[in-house]
Amino acid sequence: MKKLLIQLDTDKHPSTFDRIVAYDAGVDEVLSYSNIVVGDVKGLAQSAFFTRGLNDLKNTAIWVGGSDVTQGEQVLAEAQASFFGPFRVSLMLDSNGCNTTAATAIAKLKKDHALTGKKAVVLGLGAVGLRAAALLLQEGCHVTAASIRRVLAGVTAGGAAAGGEPASGNAVRSAPSKSVENARRISGLQVEEAGDRAEMEALMEGAEIAVCSGPANAQVLPKAFWAAHPTLKMLVDFNAAEPLGIEGIKASDDMKEREGKLILGPLGIGNTKMKVHKACIAKLFESNDQIFDVQRVYEVAGEMV
Amino acid sequence: MKKLLIQLDTDKHPSTFDRIVAYDAGVDEVLSYSNIVVGDVKGLAQSAFFTRGLNDLKNTAIWVGGSDVTQGEQVLAEAQASFFGPFRVSLMLDSNGCNTTAATAIAKLKKDHALTGKKAVVLGLGAVGLRAAALLLQEGCHVTAASIRRVLAGVTAGGAAAGGEPASGNAVRSAPSKSVENARRISGLQVEEAGDRAEMEALMEGAEIAVCSGPANAQVLPKAFWAAHPTLKMLVDFNAAEPLGIEGIKASDDMKEREGKLILGPLGIGNTKMKVHKACIAKLFESNDQIFDVQRVYEVAGEMV
Amino acid sequence: MKKLLIQLDTDKHPSTFDRIVAYDAGVDEVLSYSNIVVGDVKGLAQSAFFTRGLNDLKNTAIWVGGSDVTQGEQVLAEAQASFFGPFRVSLMLDSNGCNTTAATAIAKLKKDHALTGKKAVVLGLGAVGLRAAALLLQEGCHVTAASIRRVLAGVTAGGAAAGGEPASGNAVRSAPSKSVENARRISGLQVEEAGDRAEMEALMEGAEIAVCSGPANAQVLPKAFWAAHPTLKMLVDFNAAEPLGIEGIKASDDMKEREGKLILGPLGIGNTKMKVHKACIAKLFESNDQIFDVQRVYEVAGEMV
Repeated sequence: MKKLLIQLDTDKHPSTFDRIVAYDAGVDEVLSYSNIVVGDVKGLAQSAFFTRGLNDLKNTAIWVGGSDVTQGEQVLAEAQASFFGPFRVSLMLDSNGCNTTAATAIAKLKKDHALTGKKAVVLGLGAVGLRAAALLLQEGCHVTAASIRRVLAGVTAGGAAAGGEPASGNAVRSAPSKSVENARRISGLQVEEAGDRAEMEALMEGAEIAVCSGPANAQVLPKAFWAAHPTLKMLVDFNAAEPLGIEGIKASDDMKEREGKLILGPLGIGNTKMKVHKACIAKLFESNDQIFDVQRVYEVAGEMV
Repeated sequence: MKKLLIQLDTDKHPSTFDRIVAYDAGVDEVLSYSNIVVGDVKGLAQSAFFTRGLNDLKNTAIWVGGSDVTQGEQVLAEAQASFFGPFRVSLMLDSNGCNTTAATAIAKLKKDHALTGKKAVVLGLGAVGLRAAALLLQEGCHVTAASIRRVLAGVTAGGAAAGGEPASGNAVRSAPSKSVENARRISGLQVEEAGDRAEMEALMEGAEIAVCSGPANAQVLPKAFWAAHPTLKMLVDFNAAEPLGIEGIKASDDMKEREGKLILGPLGIGNTKMKVHKACIAKLFESNDQIFDVQRVYEVAGEMV
Repeated sequence: MKKLLIQLDTDKHPSTFDRIVAYDAGVDEVLSYSNIVVGDVKGLAQSAFFTRGLNDLKNTAIWVGGSDVTQGEQVLAEAQASFFGPFRVSLMLDSNGCNTTAATAIAKLKKDHALTGKKAVVLGLGAVGLRAAALLLQEGCHVTAASIRRVLAGVTAGGAAAGGEPASGNAVRSAPSKSVENARRISGLQVEEAGDRAEMEALMEGAEIAVCSGPANAQVLPKAFWAAHPTLKMLVDFNAAEPLGIEGIKASDDMKEREGKLILGPLGIGNTKMKVHKACIAKLFESNDQIFDVQRVYEVAGEMV
């Protein structure tokens, strides 16, 4: 019986990335759907349950993707709500790569280092950054997540990194952004909005961990700042588009020592993230009752780093 | 050479059900199309014919699906009209599962029972009910098909079963509905509109067969009525969503005796329907000149029950 | 690792022709996209590059299709623009079958005949005709390409052949058409607009090669004219829909001698075109840095005729 992955993508076109990686992870057929809205989910999910006997349902799974994580989370919730009794299939959410990317990065930090009690600062409130923040909290860190939109306004012409917080101009200064609202929902997280570079740097006082989750093509941390920082020990950068978020590192840095700090660059994360992504897809087909959200992906990442 | 099934679906998204069952029936690749309108069909069909030599055309077939049976029938007709000479492929229509469901149910009734000359009443004028009515007529029954919309108005909040006639309120009382018009086109069928429960029950006087094809989640026949009915011998229910259409039965009843009647419930039909559905798809690829409409599906069902 | 072909189609539905032929050419999975506009391309292409290691990228390729050749060319250009460094995949454009059809036809003419220095006339300025004209120029012919819209106005009710120039009425007489503008961009090509049949015939004085690329269902060259033509030696017809573009030939003519001329009919081209099409797709997966435009397809056709 073929392993079928139903790709529910909230974008105009289903992600080529998600389709290709699914095939490379051993899926036999990807059934791709695009322009998915919440109202579409119940029908598509329930029509899928009723085709195969209960013992065979583990050969069908649902993947939720697209560039908008909030929409993805709504689609995931609706798919879960469509289950009844044993009629269900395993699910995974990775809109914008958020779960696999954040989980892999924090699993790498944790691998050889105790995180408990350390101060961590996440710069940028995009989906990947917020997921990283939540995992750091869970590891016992004291975590500050800072909006850096005002800091970067003018620095970059726009364009968001995968999951990164978009840069923006003056127009958004008045009301708290959607990103800030999302951040404030994470229990235990200290959320700040840095008004300028000085405020941002002040937030990093005493921090041992910095996670750069800014927009694509925007340098967030100049080398002069981070290399001289008295307490920083580990720096993570999710931005793979030059210029990187952290000046003076290489995208391929994989816990590489530079200036006495350990650097985890976007490709250093990315290579392992691909393995985690594929491992999660393979595991989806082991039973029909799994939910691969950030927690479950983090467990898998922890076994693989 | 791969067996390719071109799925022409009239809905916004191509049915997951139809895609999955096609793979399980041995199709190598399902080429899914959604939002299909009649004007799309000729180009898609003819582009498909011209790719493979005449001897290989049996490895391509067209599946017509979606929730709207009338649209599906138009798509099927247009696909047939696009054929010329030997340039054609086999076709199957099963919008809303109408053909496989109705054919399987009536084939089950017929298996061990002479149907000729019996009075049958079909309650609900949806696509599945009308196809069942036509097959009963063909078997020599005297068939009445009754609209039960007014009977159910107020009983259910709405929502149609797979192929079931939608429940409705007062607004539709004045003009004959689309369903009634469809029913009146079936030669030999007596079509009625039950104004209330008493009228509906009167229509069932002397009936040996009752087929419940009402909307989802709506009880049509209370147990007190059918259990005490003096002539009813076989009862069929297409509604799989609780409450079932017939009170006091189980969805899985498969010609099960209850209160001295034989009961065929929705899952009792459904299990065999899945086998019929897959068998039809497999047969599509035996030659390039077959049309799997309700008649052809009924033949296959007859061999499988 | 599976061979994946990303089908970027500019039409409402992805071509069944292109999907089926891709499977028949050995592709493992076709990832179909429709309604593609230039703005969609970069994201889809780059998301595809980043899934597989550089050594494996040859197992992913992009196919550009759809009925509009100009849109296809823009999509191809945008896909190329999305490459950076070694991150690229092989590409092929064959919107409306233009490249494989024109390349196969001219390769067949060239096979046993010196083309250099001969006068050739292409009748109809559609995409296939203009590509044929460009290849004849490249072979050293003196090529005239003639709009025949005014000649055919009234002859046919409309409807364009695959890649053929649309017939049209008086409304278009005032301004040079898009087709004429496209033709004038081809360096060395003499472009004419025949006002009537006499003007068209005058343009063919001294020609040894005539290529009929008119609309579907429209006869362009009556037998009385071409059979008696003093210099014509080879005639090509791209119109497969009866009546053919050249009266008195058979669609299956494959350099068949009739009235002392060699005739290449639409199916005579088509059979070989299918082989060229499949061979090109197979070659796409030999490395990740190929562009199958008309030139590259012409090379492949030259090896296969």
